[in-house]
Amino acid sequence: MLITLTTDFGLSDPYVGIMKGVILTRAPQVKLVDLSHHIPPQAILAGSQVLTAARPFFPAGTIHLAVVDPGVGSSRRLICLQCDGQLFLAPDNGLLTPFFYEPAQAFVLENNDLFLSPLATTFHGRDILAPVAAALANGLPITQVGPSCLLSSLKKLSPPSPKISSTAITGQIEYIDHFGNAITNITTQHLQQANFAPASVVVQVADLPTLALQSTYSGAPPGTAISLINSNNILEIAVVNGNAYQQLRLSLGSSIKILKNSY
Amino acid sequence: MLITLTTDFGLSDPYVGIMKGVILTRAPQVKLVDLSHHIPPQAILAGSQVLTAARPFFPAGTIHLAVVDPGVGSSRRLICLQCDGQLFLAPDNGLLTPFFYEPAQAFVLENNDLFLSPLATTFHGRDILAPVAAALANGLPITQVGPSCLLSSLKKLSPPSPKISSTAITGQIEYIDHFGNAITNITTQHLQQANFAPASVVVQVADLPTLALQSTYSGAPPGTAISLINSNNILEIAVVNGNAYQQLRLSLGSSIKILKNSY
Amino acid sequence: MLITLTTDFGLSDPYVGIMKGVILTRAPQVKLVDLSHHIPPQAILAGSQVLTAARPFFPAGTIHLAVVDPGVGSSRRLICLQCDGQLFLAPDNGLLTPFFYEPAQAFVLENNDLFLSPLATTFHGRDILAPVAAALANGLPITQVGPSCLLSSLKKLSPPSPKISSTAITGQIEYIDHFGNAITNITTQHLQQANFAPASVVVQVADLPTLALQSTYSGAPPGTAISLINSNNILEIAVVNGNAYQQLRLSLGSSIKILKNSY
Repeated sequence: MLITLTTDFGLSDPYVGIMKGVILTRAPQVKLVDLSHHIPPQAILAGSQVLTAARPFFPAGTIHLAVVDPGVGSSRRLICLQCDGQLFLAPDNGLLTPFFYEPAQAFVLENNDLFLSPLATTFHGRDILAPVAAALANGLPITQVGPSCLLSSLKKLSPPSPKISSTAITGQIEYIDHFGNAITNITTQHLQQANFAPASVVVQVADLPTLALQSTYSGAPPGTAISLINSNNILEIAVVNGNAYQQLRLSLGSSIKILKNSY
Repeated sequence: MLITLTTDFGLSDPYVGIMKGVILTRAPQVKLVDLSHHIPPQAILAGSQVLTAARPFFPAGTIHLAVVDPGVGSSRRLICLQCDGQLFLAPDNGLLTPFFYEPAQAFVLENNDLFLSPLATTFHGRDILAPVAAALANGLPITQVGPSCLLSSLKKLSPPSPKISSTAITGQIEYIDHFGNAITNITTQHLQQANFAPASVVVQVADLPTLALQSTYSGAPPGTAISLINSNNILEIAVVNGNAYQQLRLSLGSSIKILKNSY
Repeated sequence: MLITLTTDFGLSDPYVGIMKGVILTRAPQVKLVDLSHHIPPQAILAGSQVLTAARPFFPAGTIHLAVVDPGVGSSRRLICLQCDGQLFLAPDNGLLTPFFYEPAQAFVLENNDLFLSPLATTFHGRDILAPVAAALANGLPITQVGPSCLLSSLKKLSPPSPKISSTAITGQIEYIDHFGNAITNITTQHLQQANFAPASVVVQVADLPTLALQSTYSGAPPGTAISLINSNNILEIAVVNGNAYQQLRLSLGSSIKILKNSY
């Protein structure tokens, strides 16, 4: 049984280790996998992108526990979502938005027999999400965590989605990774919707010369700016063996266009 | 069987992974949990705060291995402490001070049959603490690690403790966490000693207007400075959805006062 | 069964967690140990130094998976090396160079029944190395990963090696660790080759006064520059309870000399 952890806690403080202690005290058979603890503080969208990228690579039954929680201690709810054979535990603040568009069932964590006691108002990851994850890993039916609720009642994020016309797809940079690769909100699905063939488009990044769409980081000489469909089927801007973020002066929100090649 | 690891090694070098290799070679059934490897280099007090915060959330039998060790290779001893059903392995340099005030038994690691051979003089975490932790996890009685010693013979840290008068508790900032929350050395125990009710006090931080004591991060609008009793029962200064350390220009050692509200 | 991971992926993005998901989906019994995910981007030599330092502390049968891969998506091969009872999976880009000088057998990963499908061109760690590592952990004979190949056909790194004369060994700084300790390319083996006894040499670092060779970090007062043979039998420059890198203004490539003491 796997439980993944995604937080904005960083790794300097013992907060992540403490959540692991709570889980392993109750469910010593569990294997824990860290997805990221370096979500920028309170960046709910970045947290949801990490969950989206990771979940296809985990087996059925995996429990994903995610804490990016600016509202800890307020009246925001904590929820458990069952989706495609996996479970997701998180605050009801939009972190699980991508999964609301699939067949899913949601439950509100209200069974406080499962919580640590006394309950601190500032660390629900430790006192609620961790012991509930352990209980589910031990076989507790999801219906026992609390009442079910409608997906439509849950808080949703609405990140800007790309605009599609007959000649262009206009999106933006949504995530910069450790290598300085700039990941956009344009996916292969948008290319299909626009009926653009990857071989017949060019990509416009700021006022740089347009780029052809490569299929790998090494399709061009070192130092060259390239655009490619990455391993998660998302349009990405990179510099071969370099750092696109620094070298092309990109930033979160920078506009990116895919144009139908007129040649 | 759980072993936790707390060091100032960072995660760039393979030192932590190497200690894990030594443990898992000898005790493959063990589960390892990292508490923190980002203790500031040689900051013994910060290491002991991490252990104090984490240990209540780990089960009986857990072995906590801690290395913050400016004196590696000198004649300082390495010790094993048994306290409240858990074991602690660390240099005798004050790292385990908080546990000396509880019923505890201490042993000096002198049974060098347990150590790696040859023994390097600069990496006792790898060559002594890791194999001893593995041996204990495999059931070695603690009396076999070496001779017992008196708690009074162990090196102690004496961090400044808050001063309590009939009108005020005066403490200081002891730890800044990843979110910029400033954690003080004032606990609920000091409030009880002073006979101050949380609802009838205010908190003085530098020359800011006094703050009421909140019970959660979201008891005030975003951007507001607040003081609260945190999830470890310690007085903490925070900015709602912000970074108190940066925004209030706090630092380690800054003075913090709890005043009896005269209204 | 242990699998270690060494990458230049960092820990902010979910890339490492995703590789772990792929491995644990296929081989849930495996224990994973991180050696380092902070290899500087595409620094193949640093990656190979981490593997060299770590492998003696892992048991027979350990699988070491390493990804520092500037050429991902190009025609460079991926290989599996069997050496001294352990397996190494990595791109054929020199990352495994240190092991080519021992009795070893190499295989090219060509059995694409083992790979994820569809195969992304930009994340071979996830799509090839992770599932092959899981298959090997499950008992797949190494001969099933693909055809064997000659060690001489593999790409090699040739880092500069120290020059040895009758009066001096001249090497350089190759790695700066988290503590600011500067690790050279001079080992006890070079001292033996030169027939220098550790007690009768001095070490010349830049234009500092020569240093005697200590055996521990605490052989001199805090703040003193020292040279010592470290826990991996390599000559290292350190400052007692300080940071040699910053305080001595050292850098990668700085020249270091061991001189026969003429006293």
